[in-house]
Amino acid sequence: MPDTDSDGTVAFNGPRELTYRVVAMPADTNAAGDIFGGWLMSQIDIAGSVLAVREARGRVATVAVKELRFIAPIKVGDLVSCYSQVVSVGRTSVRVHVEAEASRQRSPHIEDQELVADAILVYVALDESGRPRPIHGESQ
Amino acid sequence: MPDTDSDGTVAFNGPRELTYRVVAMPADTNAAGDIFGGWLMSQIDIAGSVLAVREARGRVATVAVKELRFIAPIKVGDLVSCYSQVVSVGRTSVRVHVEAEASRQRSPHIEDQELVADAILVYVALDESGRPRPIHGESQ
Amino acid sequence: MPDTDSDGTVAFNGPRELTYRVVAMPADTNAAGDIFGGWLMSQIDIAGSVLAVREARGRVATVAVKELRFIAPIKVGDLVSCYSQVVSVGRTSVRVHVEAEASRQRSPHIEDQELVADAILVYVALDESGRPRPIHGESQ
Amino acid sequence: MPDTDSDGTVAFNGPRELTYRVVAMPADTNAAGDIFGGWLMSQIDIAGSVLAVREARGRVATVAVKELRFIAPIKVGDLVSCYSQVVSVGRTSVRVHVEAEASRQRSPHIEDQELVADAILVYVALDESGRPRPIHGESQ
Amino acid sequence: MPDTDSDGTVAFNGPRELTYRVVAMPADTNAAGDIFGGWLMSQIDIAGSVLAVREARGRVATVAVKELRFIAPIKVGDLVSCYSQVVSVGRTSVRVHVEAEASRQRSPHIEDQELVADAILVYVALDESGRPRPIHGESQ
Amino acid sequence: MPDTDSDGTVAFNGPRELTYRVVAMPADTNAAGDIFGGWLMSQIDIAGSVLAVREARGRVATVAVKELRFIAPIKVGDLVSCYSQVVSVGRTSVRVHVEAEASRQRSPHIEDQELVADAILVYVALDESGRPRPIHGESQ
Repeated sequence: MPDTDSDGTVAFNGPRELTYRVVAMPADTNAAGDIFGGWLMSQIDIAGSVLAVREARGRVATVAVKELRFIAPIKVGDLVSCYSQVVSVGRTSVRVHVEAEASRQRSPHIEDQELVADAILVYVALDESGRPRPIHGESQ
Repeated sequence: MPDTDSDGTVAFNGPRELTYRVVAMPADTNAAGDIFGGWLMSQIDIAGSVLAVREARGRVATVAVKELRFIAPIKVGDLVSCYSQVVSVGRTSVRVHVEAEASRQRSPHIEDQELVADAILVYVALDESGRPRPIHGESQ
Repeated sequence: MPDTDSDGTVAFNGPRELTYRVVAMPADTNAAGDIFGGWLMSQIDIAGSVLAVREARGRVATVAVKELRFIAPIKVGDLVSCYSQVVSVGRTSVRVHVEAEASRQRSPHIEDQELVADAILVYVALDESGRPRPIHGESQ
Repeated sequence: MPDTDSDGTVAFNGPRELTYRVVAMPADTNAAGDIFGGWLMSQIDIAGSVLAVREARGRVATVAVKELRFIAPIKVGDLVSCYSQVVSVGRTSVRVHVEAEASRQRSPHIEDQELVADAILVYVALDESGRPRPIHGESQ
Repeated sequence: MPDTDSDGTVAFNGPRELTYRVVAMPADTNAAGDIFGGWLMSQIDIAGSVLAVREARGRVATVAVKELRFIAPIKVGDLVSCYSQVVSVGRTSVRVHVEAEASRQRSPHIEDQELVADAILVYVALDESGRPRPIHGESQ
Repeated sequence: MPDTDSDGTVAFNGPRELTYRVVAMPADTNAAGDIFGGWLMSQIDIAGSVLAVREARGRVATVAVKELRFIAPIKVGDLVSCYSQVVSVGRTSVRVHVEAEASRQRSPHIEDQELVADAILVYVALDESGRPRPIHGESQ
C-alpha cells in the first residue's frame, strides 16, 4: 500500500535517471577561476525539471529548492553529470532529488565519479495560463 | 552581548544591501517562454556572494542553499533586484539571506517591486589552495 | 517655469536611480584579460533603457549614444553599478545620463565606488509597428 | 588479433558511452525558431572529445569531422543526448563516432529517443607546446 | 552548358563571399585554453547558411557536413573570417564550401590570413511546415 | 604634408575595412523582440578595436565613444557588417570610424546593405602594466 499523506502526496522512489551531462568550460568560471556555484545550480534545476515535466505531462515551474549542498569543487574540463529521481508527487507538485557528480578530466573511465552536489527541488505543474494544474492520475 | 553558539557562530543582522539588478532578457527563458528558474538561482548565488566576499575579505565558495523559494514568476523585461543581508558568521563560513524582487516592465516606479524569490545561502572562506580559511576577527 | 526648447524638449533632472548592478565575470573579458569595453556599453544601454521605458510608458529603442567615456578599467570580480537619470524628454524621445561605478572586489563597503564610465543616451518611444510614438503628457 | 593498418591505426569498438545530455533552450534557436545546427555541431564536438581526452590521457584538438548528418530537427525543450564510441586509435589520433538522439519534451520515458544526427570526428593528442603527441600504448 | 546530374543537381561556382568575421574571445576557449573546435564549427555552419538562405530564397536547415578539416589552431584575439561559396544546387538542397581563415592579432594587415579550417556543408530548403521545398528556378 | 595638431594628432583616412560580420540571432533580442541596441554597441566596439590593435601594434582599451547613432532597426536573421576606418592617430590614441550595415535576410545579394548605425570610437594603446603607451612612429 502506498504511503499517502493528508494532502494527497504519495512518496515513492522513481528510477534514478541521468538527466544532464556536460563538460565544464572556462566560460563557466567565477572571479577566482573556479566553476561558479550558480552555474551548477542552474544545471541542477534543469536536470530536475526533465523528470518533473515527464511526471506532470506538461509545463512546470520550479517552486523551491530544499537544501542544496555543494560537496566538492568542480574544475574546468570535468564532466559533470546530474542524476535525478522523483521522490514524491503531490496534487499539483513533483519533488525531485538531484545528485551532481564529476568525472575528473584525466580519469580513465567516465564512471569514476565523485559526488559534488545534491539537492531536493519542488516543481509545480502549470496550466496554459500559468496557474497550478492537477497532475491527474499521476500519483495513483 | 552578541549571541554566540558553540562553534563560534555569531548571529547578527548586517545591513540589507542591493547586490544585483538586471533586466530579464529573452535569452534567459525556458522552453515554456518563462524566465527559467535556474537563471534566477544563478543570480541569487552571485548576489549573496558579494557580501560573503566582503565579510570574508577574500575568496569564497558556495557550500549550501537552504530553502530557496520561488514565490512569483518573472517575465521578460522585468527589472530583477536581489537584496542581500549577512545573517550570521561562523569560524570559516558566512550565511546570507537574499530576497529577489521584480519591478514589472510598465511600473511607473522602480521601487514598485514584488518579492519573487528568497533564499538563505552559506559560503565558506577559502585560502589560496582552496581549503577553508578562518575569517579572523570578522565575527567579534 | 520649466525650460522648453523649440521642438518641445523639456529639460529637467529626474531622480538618479540605480538601474543595473552585477559582478564582472571571466566570460566578459577581452583578449588582453581586461573586462571588454563593449560588454560595459551593452550594460549601460540596458541601464538607461530602464528609465526610458518607464518615462515613455512602453517600448523604446536606442537612437544615439552621446559621448560615452571610459574613465577607469574594470577588473574581474568588481561589482559594477549603473546609475541613471532622465535629463530631458522630447516629443517622442527621452535622454538619459548613465554613470557606471565599480566597487573593487576587496572593498569593505559596496558604496566604496569609483566612477568607471559615463554616457548620455537617447531613446525613442515606439508604437506597435515600430514607428516613433508621442510620449503624451510625459513632459508637461 | 587486432586489425592494424600500415600507419599503426588499430580499429576496434570501444564501449558506447553517453557523454552529453542537455535540454535544448530558446537561446539556442536560429532565425527560423528551430534549434540551430551549429549549436548541435558544437555539442557533438565536445561529446566526442570526452572519450578522446580519456583515450589520449591528456589534451586533444579536433582535426576533422567526417560526414556529420542531421537526420531530424530538434525542438526547444527536447532532451538531447550524445552517445560516443572510440572507433580507432592511430599513433597520435583518436577517431570517435557520435550519435545524437532527442527525447521529445512530452515523451513518458527518457529512453524514447530518436536519432537526430551522427558524425565521425578525429582528434589529435597534443603535447604542452601544442604539437602532436604519440598516444603511447593506448592502442595495444 | 551546365553540368546537371541525374537528380537535377547543377554544379557551378558561385562567387566566394565573406559571410562571417569576428574576433575570437576568452569565452570561446576550451579547458586547455585553446579556441574550442565546436565554436568554430558553429560559426562555419552560420557562415554557410547565409548563402544557402539567399540561394533558396527562404528558410533552410543544415542536413550534412562533408569533411570539415581543422588545419591550424585559433588563438584568443585572432580575427576569424569565413569565406563561403555555393558549389552546387539540387532540387531542394544547396551545397556550400566554407573556408575559415585567421588573421593573427599582431599582423599589420587584416588580409595576412592563414587557412585554419574548411568544410563542405549541405543545406535543405524548408517550407513553412518544415518539409523540404523545391528551389524553383534557382539552378537554371 | 600631413595635418598635425598641437598634441601630435595626425588626421588621415586609412582604408575602410570590413572588421565584423555576423547573423543577428534570437539570443540577441530585447524584451520587445528587436535586436537589442547594446548588442550592436558591443560589436561596434570590437569592430573598431581590430584596427586600433593593428595601428597600435598591441593591446588597447576603449576610452570613448563619440556620437554613436542608431539609424535603422536590425531584425533577427539580418547579416550585420561593420566597416572600420582609422581617422586619426595621436601620441597614445587611435580614433576609428565604424559603420554598421545590415543585409536583410531575403536580399538576393550580401552587398544590398543598409546603414544601421555609425560611431566614432577612441582607443588608447596600453603597456603591460595597463598605462598609456606611445604609438612610436605610427603617425609619421
